[in-house]
Amino acid sequence: MKQRQLRYVGQNIPRVDGVDKVTGKAKFTGDLVIPGMLFGKILRSPYPHARIASIDVSEAEAFPGVSAVLTSADISDTDPYYNGRPIIAIQKARYVGEPVAAVAAEDEETAEEALSLIKVDYEELPSAVGLEAALRHGAPLIHENSKNNICSHERVEKGNIEKGFAEAEEIFEDSFTFPMVYHYTMEPHSVIADFKEEGITVWSSSQHPFQVRGDLSRIFGVPLDRVRIVIPYLGGGFGSKSYTKIEPLVVALARRARRPVRICLSVSESMLTVRRHAVRVRLKTGVKRDGTLVAREAEIYLDTGGYADNGPAVAIRAATRVLGPYRIPHIRTDAYAVYTNAGSAGSFRAIGAPQTIFAGESQMDIIASSLGIDPAELRLKNLLKKGEELMSKLRAIDADIASTLKKLVSASQWKKRSRKKNAAVGLAIGATNAGGMPISVAMVRLLADGCVTVLAGSTEMGQGVRTVLSQIVAEELSLSLDSIRVGGADTTVTPYDSSTGSSRSTTLMGLAVQAAARDLKKQLIKIGARVFGVRRSQVRVEDGGLCCGESKLTYREALERRFGGPGGELIGRGDVGAEITGSLPVFWEIGMGSAELDVDRETGEISIRRYVSAADVGMAIHPAQCVGQEEGAAMMGIGHTMFEQMVYEGGQLVNPNLVDYRVPGFSDLPREFHSLLVENRDGPGPYGVRGMGEGGLVSVAPTIANALARGTGVRIFDLPLTPERVWRALNLKDKGKRT
Amino acid sequence: MKQRQLRYVGQNIPRVDGVDKVTGKAKFTGDLVIPGMLFGKILRSPYPHARIASIDVSEAEAFPGVSAVLTSADISDTDPYYNGRPIIAIQKARYVGEPVAAVAAEDEETAEEALSLIKVDYEELPSAVGLEAALRHGAPLIHENSKNNICSHERVEKGNIEKGFAEAEEIFEDSFTFPMVYHYTMEPHSVIADFKEEGITVWSSSQHPFQVRGDLSRIFGVPLDRVRIVIPYLGGGFGSKSYTKIEPLVVALARRARRPVRICLSVSESMLTVRRHAVRVRLKTGVKRDGTLVAREAEIYLDTGGYADNGPAVAIRAATRVLGPYRIPHIRTDAYAVYTNAGSAGSFRAIGAPQTIFAGESQMDIIASSLGIDPAELRLKNLLKKGEELMSKLRAIDADIASTLKKLVSASQWKKRSRKKNAAVGLAIGATNAGGMPISVAMVRLLADGCVTVLAGSTEMGQGVRTVLSQIVAEELSLSLDSIRVGGADTTVTPYDSSTGSSRSTTLMGLAVQAAARDLKKQLIKIGARVFGVRRSQVRVEDGGLCCGESKLTYREALERRFGGPGGELIGRGDVGAEITGSLPVFWEIGMGSAELDVDRETGEISIRRYVSAADVGMAIHPAQCVGQEEGAAMMGIGHTMFEQMVYEGGQLVNPNLVDYRVPGFSDLPREFHSLLVENRDGPGPYGVRGMGEGGLVSVAPTIANALARGTGVRIFDLPLTPERVWRALNLKDKGKRT
Repeated sequence: MKQRQLRYVGQNIPRVDGVDKVTGKAKFTGDLVIPGMLFGKILRSPYPHARIASIDVSEAEAFPGVSAVLTSADISDTDPYYNGRPIIAIQKARYVGEPVAAVAAEDEETAEEALSLIKVDYEELPSAVGLEAALRHGAPLIHENSKNNICSHERVEKGNIEKGFAEAEEIFEDSFTFPMVYHYTMEPHSVIADFKEEGITVWSSSQHPFQVRGDLSRIFGVPLDRVRIVIPYLGGGFGSKSYTKIEPLVVALARRARRPVRICLSVSESMLTVRRHAVRVRLKTGVKRDGTLVAREAEIYLDTGGYADNGPAVAIRAATRVLGPYRIPHIRTDAYAVYTNAGSAGSFRAIGAPQTIFAGESQMDIIASSLGIDPAELRLKNLLKKGEELMSKLRAIDADIASTLKKLVSASQWKKRSRKKNAAVGLAIGATNAGGMPISVAMVRLLADGCVTVLAGSTEMGQGVRTVLSQIVAEELSLSLDSIRVGGADTTVTPYDSSTGSSRSTTLMGLAVQAAARDLKKQLIKIGARVFGVRRSQVRVEDGGLCCGESKLTYREALERRFGGPGGELIGRGDVGAEITGSLPVFWEIGMGSAELDVDRETGEISIRRYVSAADVGMAIHPAQCVGQEEGAAMMGIGHTMFEQMVYEGGQLVNPNLVDYRVPGFSDLPREFHSLLVENRDGPGPYGVRGMGEGGLVSVAPTIANALARGTGVRIFDLPLTPERVWRALNLKDKGKRT
Repeated sequence: MKQRQLRYVGQNIPRVDGVDKVTGKAKFTGDLVIPGMLFGKILRSPYPHARIASIDVSEAEAFPGVSAVLTSADISDTDPYYNGRPIIAIQKARYVGEPVAAVAAEDEETAEEALSLIKVDYEELPSAVGLEAALRHGAPLIHENSKNNICSHERVEKGNIEKGFAEAEEIFEDSFTFPMVYHYTMEPHSVIADFKEEGITVWSSSQHPFQVRGDLSRIFGVPLDRVRIVIPYLGGGFGSKSYTKIEPLVVALARRARRPVRICLSVSESMLTVRRHAVRVRLKTGVKRDGTLVAREAEIYLDTGGYADNGPAVAIRAATRVLGPYRIPHIRTDAYAVYTNAGSAGSFRAIGAPQTIFAGESQMDIIASSLGIDPAELRLKNLLKKGEELMSKLRAIDADIASTLKKLVSASQWKKRSRKKNAAVGLAIGATNAGGMPISVAMVRLLADGCVTVLAGSTEMGQGVRTVLSQIVAEELSLSLDSIRVGGADTTVTPYDSSTGSSRSTTLMGLAVQAAARDLKKQLIKIGARVFGVRRSQVRVEDGGLCCGESKLTYREALERRFGGPGGELIGRGDVGAEITGSLPVFWEIGMGSAELDVDRETGEISIRRYVSAADVGMAIHPAQCVGQEEGAAMMGIGHTMFEQMVYEGGQLVNPNLVDYRVPGFSDLPREFHSLLVENRDGPGPYGVRGMGEGGLVSVAPTIANALARGTGVRIFDLPLTPERVWRALNLKDKGKRT
């Protein structure tokens, strides 16, 4: 079948938020001023684990300029837990930095000063910081009514693992660790809340407006239609603003103050609010000598911090994602989210994947090396084909992963470059069962002047979702982009969307918007058929209007004919729900990378000479934005691979700032970077789109670790690959020991 | 066919805005605070007609605290006229009070003071205040490029008027006048405007948000989707806030100030902004001696003031409404909107009707008296029957007017009371071709917790539209009222609605909302049928859920089944447009009244002993609100009948306040008031609704004038019936002369 010519989709049109962003007109939550707004500050626990014996807020309340002080005593009428977190510490503090009280005052300085007037009487408790401390026998219980510190446990099983290992000819068992890392978005968490009897209004830097709405509705006992969440532009998410974070606290404080309250966290506070799970993985894989995978067993512990947040969901993903996209007959993995006395972990770009895929893909190279098989060949041999299932509970693989790997091998000149002696060349695959819930609803409204407004609850957080949705509508309605406007998420205006995250918006909100645009088109064609006096099939949309032969009707005219006068509007609606996929994931997200390193044996410093990232995007609606995602993902991956880690000492996070927490700078980027987009138009989204933006991240750490191992013979099992760690490994190797 | 039992419709449920209103939580435009908002004041012309030679704003601009000064020089890049009005006086001022300049400053006092620093050099021109001055030969031209001061002319013609009068056996010719009156809403005009490059936002006390949006879009060259009009609660409309009023001026000032600007007019300023047309009617009616009407000719002059506003539309209505709902074979009416040097007239409850129906219904009594026929009998004889046409261009009469009149006659004990000697008992009919444009679009959104949000662009201005729309949705979805929320109009959120006015919202927005609710119900039933595994026809909505036999499914559960998880929402949409009526009016609005007076022959003071108002509402969705409309209408009618008139002297409005402009007080109300709702369920709205709220007003003046004439023998042709005028008439009568 001849493919329809696309005019807007596939084009690198100027970003619709571009001018706003570069001229500084784009407003973020912290830029907003709400009349009568107070400024809030949070008093945080100085102890990793302590009982709160009493809190005396009388002096703070009496301090001039203070409107309200909030403690757990003020939330007794609420249902105060969400995702396992309390609005504010109740009876106990479980990490250094946990909110214990909050003040709303006329300005930030007054609020800050008032914090120092709050007297909290703590009884310090033995603490358990880090997985080891929390898991050891007799560890202090962080949540006292449980028998240990396991927050959740997910087991994935297939075949018979014992039988699998019995059938294996070689068994490899290794342990890997991945540190706590932070998203480091440009914008820390910012919330303005207003609590009135008639309802709650919240302006928030949130990727999950509708989840926040649901939580606030339940916590404060207010129906959904009286909770309004407005999301201005967002200065980077990466999961840090997934699910509900400080919104309930700010709402509770505003409720107490009877005025709107704004709280914008500092970077340090945001780091204590959410981070990526530190993970320990023990991975055991059995293979035939020809490289055929037979069995894989994993034991994964995730440091989830003082409260669950979405630790259980991360554990669920980790238990599957550790397997890779490989054909393995016998599987057993166990993933445990573990409470520790640290700030809570939560979502972070490709939850549970970078940690476990670092393990899995490192071990694939260990196996290849041991069996004397080319790492690319080993993967090709075991890759699941399109239509094959990893497990019966999951939707079958929907992409041709092998073809992407072949393209990567070719683009990276793998064979030529890896043949060189001591060439530090490596590759790894990051394939994940994408996590997006397939619930999105959208509307497309055609106004009387022919302009179109797109109502979609996606958050524009730099990823370009407004641009992509505009392109879809332009394509479907054959309408120029300057007639189309996509606004921000506002739960009172935009219909339900389950989240902005999990690489889901272009695919799922894209489908909903496409359906809404098509619904609108159908209505227009019906009008056209009536006006032209022809069958609907004879009417086409073209150049922002309807036509049939020589007859033309602008959308504006169509609207007038429909309503019998100026005014009126047409509303197209569309949604995706359970019906679009028989089972989850909605799609498999496919990324992979190859790297060529320079290793300074004197200092242990690694630099990346050349990096090639490949992503199977199904169809690139906006290729330049896809490449931008790939570049950003690689850079973020370089961060956790080579530099980043949050360091806790004595229960305290000791590097909560850009000086002590090292993110990549420009000099750390690959000297040569290539991005390869594979477009087979076989994704489930509009025009065959498949979500992307995570795969490019998860493959970085094993790619670099594998390149290092192939170039130097040193296998490092613990991230980050700091010069010190690499230097030590190189020296130990020279002394014949393992790190 | 058995009528379905209604559970919510027809019930006097508590008003949904009641608690907000009585607790003061309801916000009106003047209550709003927008960050960075400036306060605006308007410099107004002291001359009724003057050329503006020059304006020097330099001192005002330099005044501390002043952000911007606006004159016509600042709007040269706009398309500055709307409804014939300029944003601000251009070259000429055409009435005392016309905006000539405006100032935005940090506070109202500063703005006020800065006004006094603006130097305007006027060249006074000869002026024409009042119809007589404007119509006389050689009158000064108010709009110089025209040959006279006629703003518009509407002729209505049927049959052959000369032939009609030739066939008549008696001819009656009388002249009537009706003064300028003011709406006197609780809230004067209030607007806050913000002009940003990304779009215009306006908070306004407007009945026509979408018209304002359209005008601002055109004036400032901004697409519709970038103009947002938000309407908080409105403190009374009655047409004073129909069409665009001061919004463009406030937007232009905000544009110049580069900050939001608020202007709240004083009562005096609002009186100069809009009022009811003063009207002079010459009415000639030919009848057979048995009372059969044969011919009617009318010449109507309406004082439309300095600019057209919707004077032409008022003239169009006046030309038809003067005829009454009577069978008249030969007709010719001419209505002229006339420019005069007074503040512009515009919409006012039942445009063109109170003035012309005062004439028409007074003359019906003159005819009855002359022919010795009972006035009720004369009317019954000539009333158009349901299905009969007044004129071919208009939709046929859709109500049984005679049955309503018979009910009024019975309820008012007409026969018994009017038999008494010198009983001041009168009646009159107010029937009008309702003016509403049938374009309304609505949405009903079902959220995941089972709550429903109704998106309707109607303005809640005290008439109870939110309550009525809630009842319709409750009825259609069998959902309790506390799960339903109807918000205010916000052009970015609520779909298009042509206006709130012309008694149209319950009928037309009601139909759109009902259609949207039914569309939602259809989607729910489809889900129910799938879940229950039955045919759609077997699924019913009941008690806020779906059921089939013993099986039940709450809406919340239905949503979960539809989307395969928590979240999602269903959107019902509905609209009315050209298709709902082959021709206009959408309905005939039928009201009538009867009054029994006490007349103090010493003072000329009239007091109303008993008033019965009857309205054919088709179906009362909320009977108490209908009765409230009837009571309010009667009281407003008593105002213009007995007290109210705006008095111009030397071009100046001399009574622009509650002390000098007399509105009815409690002591002026009828001692006994009865309201009769006729419900034949034959209106075009939901459940057979027909619009109401105007008919009760228009019949008051002729009812009282007729009662006065029947009780005293004195016929007064000019309103208001002040004690002085009545006393003079009584005395002149005693002296044998006509007033």
